[in-house]
Amino acid sequence: MTDHTITFLSDDVKNTVLVPTGTLLVEAARKSGIEVGQPCGGQGRCGRCAVQVTGGNVRRRSTLRLSKEAIEQGFALACQSTVEGDLNVYIPPQEKIERRLATDRTVTDISVPIGYNIQSAQTLQRIHLTLSPPSTEDQTDDWSRLKTALRLQGIEEVTCSLGLMQKIGSLLREGDWQVSALIDTFPNDRTIPARLITLDPEHITDEEPLWGIAIDIGTTTVTLWLVELISGEVRVQVAEYNSQIARGEDVISRIIFASKNNGKEEMRERVLETINNLLDLACKRANTLPDQVKKATISGNSTMIHLLLGIPASSIRLSPFITTANHMPPLSGREVGVNIDPDGTVDCLPGVASYVGSDITAGVLSSGIDTAERVTLFLDVGTNGETVLGNRDWLVACACSAGPAFEGAGVLHGMRATIGAIEEIWVNSKTYEPTYRVIGGGKPRGLCGSGLISLLAELFLTGVLDKAGNYDLELDSPRIRQGEHGAEYVVAWGKETVDGNDIIFSRVDIDNLLRAKAAIYAGFTVLTDQVGVKLEDVNQVLIGGSFGKYINVEKAVQIGLLPDMPWERFDFLGNTSVRGAYYALLDWHSRQRIKEIANRMTYIELSANNTFYDGFMSAMFLPHTDMSRFPTIEAVMNKM
Amino acid sequence: MTDHTITFLSDDVKNTVLVPTGTLLVEAARKSGIEVGQPCGGQGRCGRCAVQVTGGNVRRRSTLRLSKEAIEQGFALACQSTVEGDLNVYIPPQEKIERRLATDRTVTDISVPIGYNIQSAQTLQRIHLTLSPPSTEDQTDDWSRLKTALRLQGIEEVTCSLGLMQKIGSLLREGDWQVSALIDTFPNDRTIPARLITLDPEHITDEEPLWGIAIDIGTTTVTLWLVELISGEVRVQVAEYNSQIARGEDVISRIIFASKNNGKEEMRERVLETINNLLDLACKRANTLPDQVKKATISGNSTMIHLLLGIPASSIRLSPFITTANHMPPLSGREVGVNIDPDGTVDCLPGVASYVGSDITAGVLSSGIDTAERVTLFLDVGTNGETVLGNRDWLVACACSAGPAFEGAGVLHGMRATIGAIEEIWVNSKTYEPTYRVIGGGKPRGLCGSGLISLLAELFLTGVLDKAGNYDLELDSPRIRQGEHGAEYVVAWGKETVDGNDIIFSRVDIDNLLRAKAAIYAGFTVLTDQVGVKLEDVNQVLIGGSFGKYINVEKAVQIGLLPDMPWERFDFLGNTSVRGAYYALLDWHSRQRIKEIANRMTYIELSANNTFYDGFMSAMFLPHTDMSRFPTIEAVMNKM
Repeated sequence: MTDHTITFLSDDVKNTVLVPTGTLLVEAARKSGIEVGQPCGGQGRCGRCAVQVTGGNVRRRSTLRLSKEAIEQGFALACQSTVEGDLNVYIPPQEKIERRLATDRTVTDISVPIGYNIQSAQTLQRIHLTLSPPSTEDQTDDWSRLKTALRLQGIEEVTCSLGLMQKIGSLLREGDWQVSALIDTFPNDRTIPARLITLDPEHITDEEPLWGIAIDIGTTTVTLWLVELISGEVRVQVAEYNSQIARGEDVISRIIFASKNNGKEEMRERVLETINNLLDLACKRANTLPDQVKKATISGNSTMIHLLLGIPASSIRLSPFITTANHMPPLSGREVGVNIDPDGTVDCLPGVASYVGSDITAGVLSSGIDTAERVTLFLDVGTNGETVLGNRDWLVACACSAGPAFEGAGVLHGMRATIGAIEEIWVNSKTYEPTYRVIGGGKPRGLCGSGLISLLAELFLTGVLDKAGNYDLELDSPRIRQGEHGAEYVVAWGKETVDGNDIIFSRVDIDNLLRAKAAIYAGFTVLTDQVGVKLEDVNQVLIGGSFGKYINVEKAVQIGLLPDMPWERFDFLGNTSVRGAYYALLDWHSRQRIKEIANRMTYIELSANNTFYDGFMSAMFLPHTDMSRFPTIEAVMNKM
Repeated sequence: MTDHTITFLSDDVKNTVLVPTGTLLVEAARKSGIEVGQPCGGQGRCGRCAVQVTGGNVRRRSTLRLSKEAIEQGFALACQSTVEGDLNVYIPPQEKIERRLATDRTVTDISVPIGYNIQSAQTLQRIHLTLSPPSTEDQTDDWSRLKTALRLQGIEEVTCSLGLMQKIGSLLREGDWQVSALIDTFPNDRTIPARLITLDPEHITDEEPLWGIAIDIGTTTVTLWLVELISGEVRVQVAEYNSQIARGEDVISRIIFASKNNGKEEMRERVLETINNLLDLACKRANTLPDQVKKATISGNSTMIHLLLGIPASSIRLSPFITTANHMPPLSGREVGVNIDPDGTVDCLPGVASYVGSDITAGVLSSGIDTAERVTLFLDVGTNGETVLGNRDWLVACACSAGPAFEGAGVLHGMRATIGAIEEIWVNSKTYEPTYRVIGGGKPRGLCGSGLISLLAELFLTGVLDKAGNYDLELDSPRIRQGEHGAEYVVAWGKETVDGNDIIFSRVDIDNLLRAKAAIYAGFTVLTDQVGVKLEDVNQVLIGGSFGKYINVEKAVQIGLLPDMPWERFDFLGNTSVRGAYYALLDWHSRQRIKEIANRMTYIELSANNTFYDGFMSAMFLPHTDMSRFPTIEAVMNKM
């Protein structure tokens, strides 16, 4: 097998590499030092890794996401095409993963829980010890001497890592036998002995800050709160895109990527890199150091937690959808690879099932459904669309695989809610001409989730689309036309856009959106049916997830994503997951509550559920086959 | 500061390196790729690192171990001399650390304890599990499913490392929900939950071998026994020099070396290298693999255990002589760095004090003193000279810092018991001419411990030395002469020796040997005094340590190292430490007994003990100031 010379050209580099026949272009590019992003995890689904072969031949294993013209121009999906000879390849500028630090949109108003008291709430204990120094009359070893002193303070059993054992001798002597010990007790699990985290040779006053972090590992965004545990105050909030995005936008793509070659290790390194960068940043802002952080609580969907811990996630993806563990044992910074104190506790909060993770149990805690008197619906509109229904007496949950359409993936001109995304749109009911608002105010590049919901609702209400999502090609507008993928609507003409191409909204895009919204709607209809509650009896609909914050409720009801209810029953809570992790970090009673939530929540697997399938099919219309469920929309339509 | 060019020349290499002014020669040599051995740990005490400066100038910070002639010839101690300009340095052949695998001398006859039964004795448990496979009706996570199955087999609480958690999902599926689990239970400490070590997807029959290792980390030699735990049989015995020797021959030198720069890390790496090499070798011989070893018990003096675990040992060396921990918690292969199964248990056996480590508690177990009816004396003649006196009702111990003279260090022509060492010597009482036996049968290179004891006894009995160790220079023999370090005896003329130099035995050497034997003798006199037992009431003297195996009892009594007793009361047990580690590996009742031995043994610190000082001074004579303690010797002398 001979090697071929591949020359990669992009706007800023020109790299040459030798590879054998059959090498994937994405691999060849990586070998040459260029990373081609693969949002769908290398499955040929998203079409974002298209490159242009300007010389030589490649074998295209899939052209699903390429037009005839694109193929004629030499375009090929880097994740699906293999080298057959010497090549010249042009790599067009990709949608960059902007490392925007979401400081504005993601900062949450948060106050310390009323009555918070570190003494009764916190598992960490600072204990000041004065030991009698050893002498030739008392040659007790250091560790026994320390354990005896701790026993006098009520700590019966204590363990210590080998890493810390290597230091206690010098720390005790440096402190001249007076030290401040930091112990983590585990009141939530009496089978775990207390663990020594730090031994400080200086006298640490009880007022000295004590640091912890609460982390939400979102599929898209990782959020970290730096918390001072004595006051209980959140001192810094930071968030950044999860660097795993470059290897898949949804959990399924990531699981697939992680199961290939060194994918598992890469996924772990990527999320750790994101977390450790955020930790550095937060600590700098609070004028402290990462190793001063002594405890971390982490919430996230089950896939994110598995990937963080290097645990294979394949069985999460495949029926019957099983995690390795929903309740992880307490770990340390050293074991997990998070740069807090190596002996600091890392507590991955417990989840319920493969698709109802600790982001949801933490979300339930922080939204208070588990203590609500009346029936409440909790909705996390994201790739997975987890839904919880319940009150203080019962909790049921499901996850409905909405897919990433609302996050801009699987839609031709979809994109994340960053600069250049159309986030809101209005369509004139006479001329069918659109007006829109672009994030950042410049020329549009595509449509983000809220823009897509808005567009779908407007096209339906103005009659451009019928209930089934079909375009009315009879209407007199150049924007409604037959395109390569069937009928389409031109949202923006090429002359208005960043790249000079029309931004269109195709029949295929509509189908993906309908599937996503139908899945979510069917999810909560299954839950209400299952427990015999009518939708109108739901007292409150709580929407979590940062995506939820920007939905226009009216439009979301119009397309049938949210149920038709008085608007005052909707409440947008923002990131309920990190908030729950924060409560669990502060107070072991809250941590205990999350464990109880995880244990008592009944998970309903939808993949084997006929009610779900029926509900899903009925919801594949705008807003629904059964218009009696959407009386408000019916009224609006009658008025138009 | 400018760099100087140093050219090192030895018999087989010529290396050149650039270093700044003030660099130690030993560092410069290391940088150039040549390791100069430092048996005393780089303190300038042993003189073994002498090199010859043939061009240029060095600053000699110490010349203690160099003669005037040697200095005139350019010799300098590499550990004490610093670079002052460009240099040419000749490195003479050093006493090589022979990586001889002691197959013959160290193999011990050992049989499985009578009545050994893995079911009742072993902490490791093989459990065969059949789990119900998950389904969409039962989506229990893998870890909970496994814990439930174990609970049905009586294992209530079980933990699992993150490393193993990363594998259990695929192992359960590979085994199609039928697996063999290996669990370590900790019957010796009920606060420690059972730990999952291995999950095997294949059905492991109860007859399949189950491997463990017992290790004795000696200051000089590391011994490893590979044990099949079902039969309890020792299948392979291997031993090798502890590679730390290159950085110091006794524990004090090693502690000093470990406290400098990266010394601690180097010491840890060196002993791990030795252990892992032995493990490889033993596994090859038994046709198995290191990761099939599931449990290790380790005995060794407290310094060796600290250095193995990367725990600083400085406080062991300095008054009041304190260890970091005498009882180490159970660790894993992964934590310690021993290449057994990463989740296999590593159990460092408990010691008593800085100078009475687990080599002694394991030795007491295997020699059975703790169950003896009558008073027994246990002696580990080595660098530290630990002594235990007791019976089933009481145990007292001391360590008497004999120094390494009996291992050939601190003696001008001393060496270890390897090829070329004079191991036995006879002096003619008329001509004072010696005859001797050399290990390997060739020309002599020096004197090992048994040779030194033999020589000292012969010179005393023939009147060449008086009771105080002074040479009788009046005697008519060319062998008795005035040397550079005072009076000396020529053991072998240059023409008979390997390097052409006379092998001599000087007054300084005699003092070192007298101090060593006086310390050991004073040690057990203190113990007998302390508990009010007369030496003659001691029923048995058990001598452990591989050194002990080769002592000529008669000679050892003649110099006053051992008490004058009927010879049948002496028993040489060989390596009692590894034997004790083997019993503890097999049977948790034996492990419990070692813990009890460690807890009930009273350690007597000699450094602050007047009785010891008096006993030591009285024993600084041949054989003792008080000849009534050595009636047999008195009789022999009267006959001569």
